[in-house]
Amino acid sequence: MEIAKTPTPPYYAVIFTSQKTDINSGYNKMSSQMVELVETQHGFLGFESATNGIVRETHSGGITVSYWKDMHSIKNWKENSEHILAQKTGKEKWYQSYKIRICKIEQDYEFHKESES
Amino acid sequence: MEIAKTPTPPYYAVIFTSQKTDINSGYNKMSSQMVELVETQHGFLGFESATNGIVRETHSGGITVSYWKDMHSIKNWKENSEHILAQKTGKEKWYQSYKIRICKIEQDYEFHKESES
Repeated sequence: MEIAKTPTPPYYAVIFTSQKTDINSGYNKMSSQMVELVETQHGFLGFESATNGIVRETHSGGITVSYWKDMHSIKNWKENSEHILAQKTGKEKWYQSYKIRICKIEQDYEFHKESES
Repeated sequence: MEIAKTPTPPYYAVIFTSQKTDINSGYNKMSSQMVELVETQHGFLGFESATNGIVRETHSGGITVSYWKDMHSIKNWKENSEHILAQKTGKEKWYQSYKIRICKIEQDYEFHKESES
């Protein structure tokens, strides 16, 4: 789990919160392909992803946040043809439900523990 | 992992991405207390949280997104005295690093698979 290195705000983010079905067939492969593809997109700044793998409530799920230079780049990614196919398969097979929130990052700050010698 | 029920945009979010140290003592208790406390805060709309519990890279970590009515509510929560104490202990013990991003949610949409009969 790496923290994405993003520029000084403002920039944009897509928060993708999902609950999976019990079907996992093909998911890891498609997920890897989408990571490779998104990294080539114009305006892509980075992403962070965390999944609840141990505690299983109704459905396992996760949060992926991708960061973008502007809204135009987000729109282009949404309409990318390979991504559209992944979205379609996701709805058919892997996702019980998801919510996508598009937002403008207005402020950020961070903390890093100093290394102890 | 539940998807937060949030109102029609615009509303606000705090994306908290963290990497933990190896110290876990007291963390779960404090985490539960903060969840109880945040739910009583004015303007709090909900939260989502996912942690990478299985795959351990350099540090385990997670993403927590809390949703808020307005920036004023976010500021109040940041300055809540019990929360400040939790933040202090977090920096001393539990967090190797974290990044906080404050954003305005401008659009959202969702998908729910229909139940099959």
